[in-house]
Amino acid sequence: MVHSRGKFITVEGIEGAGKSSNLDFMQRMLEVSGLKVVRTREPGGTLLGEEIRDLLLSHRHSGMSGKSELLLMFAARCEHIDRVIEPALTSGSWVLCDRFTDASYAYQGGGRGIDSERIAVLERWAQGGVRPDLTLLLDLPVAEGLARAGERSEPDRFEIEQQHFFHRVRARYLEIAAASPERVRVVDASLPLPLVQQQIGELVSLFIRASLGD
Amino acid sequence: MVHSRGKFITVEGIEGAGKSSNLDFMQRMLEVSGLKVVRTREPGGTLLGEEIRDLLLSHRHSGMSGKSELLLMFAARCEHIDRVIEPALTSGSWVLCDRFTDASYAYQGGGRGIDSERIAVLERWAQGGVRPDLTLLLDLPVAEGLARAGERSEPDRFEIEQQHFFHRVRARYLEIAAASPERVRVVDASLPLPLVQQQIGELVSLFIRASLGD
Repeated sequence: MVHSRGKFITVEGIEGAGKSSNLDFMQRMLEVSGLKVVRTREPGGTLLGEEIRDLLLSHRHSGMSGKSELLLMFAARCEHIDRVIEPALTSGSWVLCDRFTDASYAYQGGGRGIDSERIAVLERWAQGGVRPDLTLLLDLPVAEGLARAGERSEPDRFEIEQQHFFHRVRARYLEIAAASPERVRVVDASLPLPLVQQQIGELVSLFIRASLGD
Repeated sequence: MVHSRGKFITVEGIEGAGKSSNLDFMQRMLEVSGLKVVRTREPGGTLLGEEIRDLLLSHRHSGMSGKSELLLMFAARCEHIDRVIEPALTSGSWVLCDRFTDASYAYQGGGRGIDSERIAVLERWAQGGVRPDLTLLLDLPVAEGLARAGERSEPDRFEIEQQHFFHRVRARYLEIAAASPERVRVVDASLPLPLVQQQIGELVSLFIRASLGD
């Protein structure tokens, strides 16, 4: 049997935007539509990637430069694409990924101040033509996101950044969405969860129908 | 007091070429000439770099792609330049480094088959203008190097590669030396140690005299 290539969906947003619970919701939606789903995350998604994630999030490396951070992100991403994302898409599975390259533009670009064109050099170098087919940006005010995130576990090396860092991250995410309105759909994640899921449900349903050619 | 900028010397070669003992010898030569020396190595040289080195050499990651390997090397290299090499050179110290970017061209380029132009993209991206002032390539036949290396510790993820891998590495090293004869000096490391050190002694003495303007 010949499979048609799967679709690659990513979810982006700052800390506390509700990515995990909404990824659960999206995964169920895709599965009840009869799609095979591979759920994964960045940084991480492979043995090497998870070990790189540990380096990236550890407070041991509090002085790491934005350049090293970005190269580590792309090292993990190469493995992730080669071992998980591309094989899954080729086999016809849909891939649902918690953060991807937009996060590099937002965090290392917007947050740390690395020029977008420099990030684009690594994106082309590492990814070839692999890009998400759909990205949901879960957007909410920084203070709200940080308040929600603060109720969870101990903050990691990114989560201890100051508010103005996350303001720059959020602003860059919104710029990306404005520049790629076809691919990136903004979800108002400040609303109560049922209303967030209503927005996501509509966007994902539309995307599934368009993809399956109904 | 105004320091003149230090010089950046690297030593390259395949496994078993005698880098460590010859670096000891070079360090003593520089120090008896009254120079301050910072001795370091790649991959490694910083806390983050040494942890990346562990990832790179570990058999856990036996299937790592050449692309990820190269991005990890450059992530470690960025830190190494920013935290160790550039501050040392600026303060007037000379830096003596066990392997540097030539090793990326030799191992990930020659060995793993990544195109040199792709490596050059990362070199420009990560290093800006930082390049060695002098490189000694300790050259010897692959079988001899591997025989010597085999007498030491357990082989790491690179050392278990087959002979033909190291033949490609050595060939690429020699190509680099041929392309940059001013910077890269080839030392016949197959000779007995006193004769190897005689060659190194002459090259380093000449370089010190030229650098100090005697």
